[in-house]
Amino acid sequence: MTTAEEFGRLTRQVADLAQEVGSLRDVNAIRKLQHAYGYYLDKCLYDEVVDLFAESGEVRFMGGVFKGRDGLRRLYCDRFRQNFTGGYNGPVYGFLLDHLILQDIVDVAANRQSALGRFRCFMQAGRHESKPATRPGLPSQWWEGGLYENEFVRESGVWKIKVLNYRAVYHGLFEKGWAHTPADFVPFFSETFPKDPVGPDALMAPKPVLWPETDVLAFHYEHPVTGKRWHAT
Amino acid sequence: MTTAEEFGRLTRQVADLAQEVGSLRDVNAIRKLQHAYGYYLDKCLYDEVVDLFAESGEVRFMGGVFKGRDGLRRLYCDRFRQNFTGGYNGPVYGFLLDHLILQDIVDVAANRQSALGRFRCFMQAGRHESKPATRPGLPSQWWEGGLYENEFVRESGVWKIKVLNYRAVYHGLFEKGWAHTPADFVPFFSETFPKDPVGPDALMAPKPVLWPETDVLAFHYEHPVTGKRWHAT
Amino acid sequence: MTTAEEFGRLTRQVADLAQEVGSLRDVNAIRKLQHAYGYYLDKCLYDEVVDLFAESGEVRFMGGVFKGRDGLRRLYCDRFRQNFTGGYNGPVYGFLLDHLILQDIVDVAANRQSALGRFRCFMQAGRHESKPATRPGLPSQWWEGGLYENEFVRESGVWKIKVLNYRAVYHGLFEKGWAHTPADFVPFFSETFPKDPVGPDALMAPKPVLWPETDVLAFHYEHPVTGKRWHAT
Repeated sequence: MTTAEEFGRLTRQVADLAQEVGSLRDVNAIRKLQHAYGYYLDKCLYDEVVDLFAESGEVRFMGGVFKGRDGLRRLYCDRFRQNFTGGYNGPVYGFLLDHLILQDIVDVAANRQSALGRFRCFMQAGRHESKPATRPGLPSQWWEGGLYENEFVRESGVWKIKVLNYRAVYHGLFEKGWAHTPADFVPFFSETFPKDPVGPDALMAPKPVLWPETDVLAFHYEHPVTGKRWHAT
Repeated sequence: MTTAEEFGRLTRQVADLAQEVGSLRDVNAIRKLQHAYGYYLDKCLYDEVVDLFAESGEVRFMGGVFKGRDGLRRLYCDRFRQNFTGGYNGPVYGFLLDHLILQDIVDVAANRQSALGRFRCFMQAGRHESKPATRPGLPSQWWEGGLYENEFVRESGVWKIKVLNYRAVYHGLFEKGWAHTPADFVPFFSETFPKDPVGPDALMAPKPVLWPETDVLAFHYEHPVTGKRWHAT
Repeated sequence: MTTAEEFGRLTRQVADLAQEVGSLRDVNAIRKLQHAYGYYLDKCLYDEVVDLFAESGEVRFMGGVFKGRDGLRRLYCDRFRQNFTGGYNGPVYGFLLDHLILQDIVDVAANRQSALGRFRCFMQAGRHESKPATRPGLPSQWWEGGLYENEFVRESGVWKIKVLNYRAVYHGLFEKGWAHTPADFVPFFSETFPKDPVGPDALMAPKPVLWPETDVLAFHYEHPVTGKRWHAT
């Protein structure tokens, strides 16, 4: 016959397991969310990209901060979609912007309502020679490497992107490479909305650095072995 | 003392957990299966590649469909192995065909007998200048990006590839890049077996598009936040 | 009322689940460990890299074996840090060495005290033209692909790298590619410490091969479907 004590012990063990399993499921859900982000961006599905974010979502990109639904639509739909596909929500002839997403480090909060994730992005971008340039100044083809240190939130049971913090690490023209990246290859934002009608809501301060400058995009996690938090020295 | 009701509730909770844990293990097993596929292909281990498939497995590649054991061996062993290593099952001097596999989105069916998975492939391919060309017309080195939307099946407890659906997104000569990919860089299959002795069992209809044409390889999953299924407009 | 038998059965089921969940958590922890390795190396955080290893950790690299704390510090701090950043523990202007880590196949031992993991590394390396060369002979920019077959160990509950076994698969100058890699692009170690003050503790025997030579870095896992272990023929 089972005592109340034995039963209580097993019940608590099952509750602990349920918490651990829930956390593992969250990690998988967040990986899928971020991976889906990359697959939508590849195909210029900007409406679908914006829908991955929480209502109060935010993007940090090239020194600018885009806030909330309005800010996100300004960046993805008014800016990128206009520049890259002439306003069409989907892929167009001869335009490539593949976003390879990899190397996840995802940490879910104990209450399973928020999470932090580091990912890497590796891009192949450009325009086929048979497609007329839609935007003068855009190089015909380039490599790009970057990092994400993102925040995720669970709203009504669904994981969403709260902060997408993208940091370009380098750009390299296909023909020349990162050893010969011209200065200010992608200029940082210098004006905010509405002065720049497709500009950010705010500017990041301090401004991030751009290759050939380098820095460390702070890790959201402690060192896996020592438990120490990294700080710039 | 534990009531039957309390015990029944805990038993059901454990059964639910077992299902969730089983599903998480399946995701890991399927990721490993797909990753192993890439590692075997790198090394021209074509026999090992074919063995990853279910008996009724199928490959969709460059507009052709290769069906069952015979079709798979025709593609991997009679075609690729003959062309790439002169028939040797293993790596050869000066031949590179690395298949980087990443960005998994795996969804396991509720009954845990089948699963769908999107992955990406990024390839470095070519022949070292010190190795004589085995096949005229093959470029000396190129980049390739592609997508998988695969089906997996569990047979006798073991996950296998049921449908490998590979879609090349772009090819780019190392020297020229994707901005200057010649038309029909890799021609689609136009003849079936046995008219083409190493051709597919059937042709895909409609024929997929090839860079600089673009399209969306349909996602097997609903949008992670809105739950909407994407459809071409 | 619950019988002892029913309760015993549920207890064993929970114990099995706990083992499975523990193993899934281990896989995630080991992926994070290896991914963190790549992120630290990117940023020349060599002290942090060394701290990811077990006390008796070991690195196999370019034909050399570096053993224990002293060997690891000799490789990462005395050799790499001196060569790449002039001794500074952190990123420096104009130096790029991104380590993309992907395609994990991680297998945890039944006792959850050790694990084996295959990963892939894809590198972008070089020096911006505006940065003076710190080391003559280092090419200005190159691609590199490689594999890891690593061993991990749990010490005091924390997963650490026991053996980092890195095998370069190819190098390619950015300007020329892997089709034109010069012979002995990265020479293997030929002298041990202390004759080479930043050399390995031992030389690997047999010496690994280097592109355009090719071979199979043996898989730690059996074939996922046939269960057969791969052997060189």
